[in-house]
Amino acid sequence: MQAEIISVGTELLLGNIVNTDARDLSVGLSELGIDVFWHTVVGDNPGRLAEVVDIARQRADLIITTGGLGPTCDDLTKQVLAHAFGLELEFNQEAAERMQAFFDGIGKEMTENNLQQAYLPAGCTVFQNDWGTAPGCAFQVDGVRCLMLPGPPRECNAMFRHRAVPYLRALSDQQLYTHNLRIFGEGESAVEFRLRDLMNRLKNPTLAPYAKDGEVLLRVTAKAHNEAEAEALMAPVLAEVQETLGELIYGVDAVESLEAAVSLRLRELGRTMAAAESCTGGGVAKRMTELPGASQVFRGGVTVYTDAAKTALLDIPAELLEEKGAVSREVAALMASRVREKLRADYGLGITGLAGPGGDGKNPVGTVFIALADAEGVEVREIHQPRDRQRVRLYAEQNALDMLLRAMTVK
Amino acid sequence: MQAEIISVGTELLLGNIVNTDARDLSVGLSELGIDVFWHTVVGDNPGRLAEVVDIARQRADLIITTGGLGPTCDDLTKQVLAHAFGLELEFNQEAAERMQAFFDGIGKEMTENNLQQAYLPAGCTVFQNDWGTAPGCAFQVDGVRCLMLPGPPRECNAMFRHRAVPYLRALSDQQLYTHNLRIFGEGESAVEFRLRDLMNRLKNPTLAPYAKDGEVLLRVTAKAHNEAEAEALMAPVLAEVQETLGELIYGVDAVESLEAAVSLRLRELGRTMAAAESCTGGGVAKRMTELPGASQVFRGGVTVYTDAAKTALLDIPAELLEEKGAVSREVAALMASRVREKLRADYGLGITGLAGPGGDGKNPVGTVFIALADAEGVEVREIHQPRDRQRVRLYAEQNALDMLLRAMTVK
Repeated sequence: MQAEIISVGTELLLGNIVNTDARDLSVGLSELGIDVFWHTVVGDNPGRLAEVVDIARQRADLIITTGGLGPTCDDLTKQVLAHAFGLELEFNQEAAERMQAFFDGIGKEMTENNLQQAYLPAGCTVFQNDWGTAPGCAFQVDGVRCLMLPGPPRECNAMFRHRAVPYLRALSDQQLYTHNLRIFGEGESAVEFRLRDLMNRLKNPTLAPYAKDGEVLLRVTAKAHNEAEAEALMAPVLAEVQETLGELIYGVDAVESLEAAVSLRLRELGRTMAAAESCTGGGVAKRMTELPGASQVFRGGVTVYTDAAKTALLDIPAELLEEKGAVSREVAALMASRVREKLRADYGLGITGLAGPGGDGKNPVGTVFIALADAEGVEVREIHQPRDRQRVRLYAEQNALDMLLRAMTVK
Repeated sequence: MQAEIISVGTELLLGNIVNTDARDLSVGLSELGIDVFWHTVVGDNPGRLAEVVDIARQRADLIITTGGLGPTCDDLTKQVLAHAFGLELEFNQEAAERMQAFFDGIGKEMTENNLQQAYLPAGCTVFQNDWGTAPGCAFQVDGVRCLMLPGPPRECNAMFRHRAVPYLRALSDQQLYTHNLRIFGEGESAVEFRLRDLMNRLKNPTLAPYAKDGEVLLRVTAKAHNEAEAEALMAPVLAEVQETLGELIYGVDAVESLEAAVSLRLRELGRTMAAAESCTGGGVAKRMTELPGASQVFRGGVTVYTDAAKTALLDIPAELLEEKGAVSREVAALMASRVREKLRADYGLGITGLAGPGGDGKNPVGTVFIALADAEGVEVREIHQPRDRQRVRLYAEQNALDMLLRAMTVK
C-alpha cells in the first residue's frame, strides 16, 4: 500500500504547532510495513482541502487524515471527504450517545454543535473515540481506502493505535524491522563514503545514514513476515557494517546517545565519574543528569568558567593559569585530576577551550583540551572545531563523552 | 504570495524526525506577511519529488524546499528542481572553496562526494552556508520563485534567517516590522485571555502570543513602508500591553531569554552570580555560559547531584541532609549561600528538587526549592511542576533565573 497522510489545520501552516501527528502515524505505518510516500498539510479551507484530496486519491491507495473532525465551524474534513468520494453523511446514534455520556461525566452541558461530530460517511467503519468526543472512521471507494482521525495528538495517537492499527493489520502481511547504530568520530558524508558500495548493493534490508547533532545515526531496515526472518536478513549486513566502521559505533538500538552509552558502561563496571567544565559550562553534567538514576554514576561536577573559579573550586594554582593559560593541556589535565579527587570518582573529565567569539591570543577559537583522569594517570585530547559557539561546545561535550567511553571499552 | 514548503527526506516519512523545519519556516514566512497554504513532505525519490514540484508550481508562486542538498547520493533536490525548471547545474567555485576551508579547519580530508554540493542552478542567487557545508539558492522561472535550504534544523533556521529573509524582504515595498516581548510567569492561554480584547480590536499592527519552552513570546507586528511609520503604529499597542502585563514582561527584542536578561542586568549593575545545582544538573550554568563574555557575570557553578557532592563541594553538613532531606528549603538555602561565598559572587542560586521519575518519600515528584542568596540574606521559592523529568528541570531553571532577575529589578 502507498499511503498519504493529510493533516488539516491552519495552525500547522502558521507554525503554531509542529506536525507530530504525521510523525507518529508514519512510525506506526512503517511498523505495519505500509509505505508512506507523502505528508500533506492544508488549512481549514474546504476548497484547498478538496484539491489536496483529489491529488492524493490519484497517487495513494491509503489516505489518512488528521484533524478537522471537531465541533467548530472550521472542522470540515468529514464533509469534504464524503463529498469528494460521493458519500452521504449519516447520523451515528452510538457516537451521539457516547458524547452525551462524556459530557455527563465531566458535569458539563453538551452544546448543540457537538452533535455535528456524530455525522459520518454512509457505510463507513466507525472508530469510536474513548479519548475525546470526535469519532473517526474508515471507508473504501474505487480502490482507495480513507481513514479519518482527530487532530489533537493524544487523541490521534490513541485512535491510531487502538482503532486504525487493528483495522490496517488485517490488510497487510509484511512488517518493517529496524536496528539503529549510533556513530561518533566521523561525519555523515565520510560514513556514507565508507558504506556506499554496500548501500548500493542492498535492497532488503536497506541502510541509511542520518546526520544528528554532532554524530551520525545509521539505520538498517528489513521488510519481513516476522522478526526471525527480519533478523536473518539483517545479520550479515550488521556484520559487514561492524567490520567497516568498527569502533566508531558506540551504541545500538536502545543506547541513543553518548551519555546513555557512558552511563550504561559505568553501571556495568560499577564505576563513577565527575566533570570539571570550563567552555562547556555544565553541558556534560546536564547531559549525564538528564538520565534517570544519574546519581549512581555521576558524582557531580563544577563549572569553572573563570580563572577564579578554577582556583576556588579546584585549587588550580594561579601561577599555572598565568604561565600556561586557562586553555591549555596542563590546566585541562589538572582540572580532570582535581575534580576526580574532590568528588572521589573513578574518572574525572576536565574540559577547557575557546568557544568564541573572543580569543585568548594564544589558541585559535575552537581549540578545546579535554582531559580524562583515572587511577593510572591522565590523558589529554586536543580538538579544533572552528564553528559557532554552540557547535564548539557540543563537539567538546561529544569528545569528552567519547573519550571516557573508549577508556572504559579498552580497559 | 502563496507559498508551499516542500520538505524532502525519507526520514520524515518514516517518522524518524518531526518536521520542525516546516514549522519554523511557517513562522518566519508569516512574519514576512507571506501566506503558507501547503506543506508537502516527500522522500528522497527523484520521480516523486518531480511530481510534487509540478503540483506545487501550479498552485504556489513561492516554493521553499528543505533537505536533499547534502553530499550523499540520495541528496537530489537541486538536480530535480533544476531539471523541472529547465536550468543547468553549474559549479560554484566559492562554495567549493568554503567547503575545502571548512574541512581544512577541522583537520579532516574532504571526501570527493562533498563537491556535489557546489553544483547550483545556472543564474541562481547563491545562499552561502556559514553553518554547514551545503549552500542553498534562489531562482525564479515563469513567475514561480524557488528557494532551496538545507535540511538539518540548525542550518535550515540560520540559512532562512540570514539568507532567505533578506532576499524575500527585498521583494515587497511594504515590510513587516516586529517587536518581541518575552513573558514569564503565565501560560499562553492566560496571556491571550488578558489581551483578547486588544487582539480582536487590532488590524495593523497585530498581536500574537506563542508558547515557547517554559515561557511565552508575544509578538507585535506592523506592516509599513519604513521603520518610523511602523514604530508609530506599534507605540500605543506596546504601551497598552505593558500596562496589561506589567512585570510579567522580562525582555524585549534582543533580550531573547531569561539568561540574557539576567546577564544584561548583572552587567549593568556590575555584579556577578554563581549557581549550585542539584536537580537541574548544570542547566543554569550551561545557559549562563552560552552567552559570549559570560565570565564577566557568571563566576562559576557546581553540579551537586549527590549528597556526597553537596558535602564535598559546598560543605553541606551530612546531618542537615539527613534531617531535612536533600530536597528541602534548608538545603536549597545553604547551597545558595555556600556557592555565593565560595565563588565570591554577589548572588548565589541554590536549586534542589525531584525531577523524577523516582521520589524521595517526602516530597511529590516535581517539587523544587530554589534559593537566592545575596549580601542581605536568603529567600526561597518553592515550585510544583508535576510533569516529565525534562519539564521539571526546565521550569526549575526558568524560576531560578526569574527570581534573580526580579531581585535585581527591585533593588
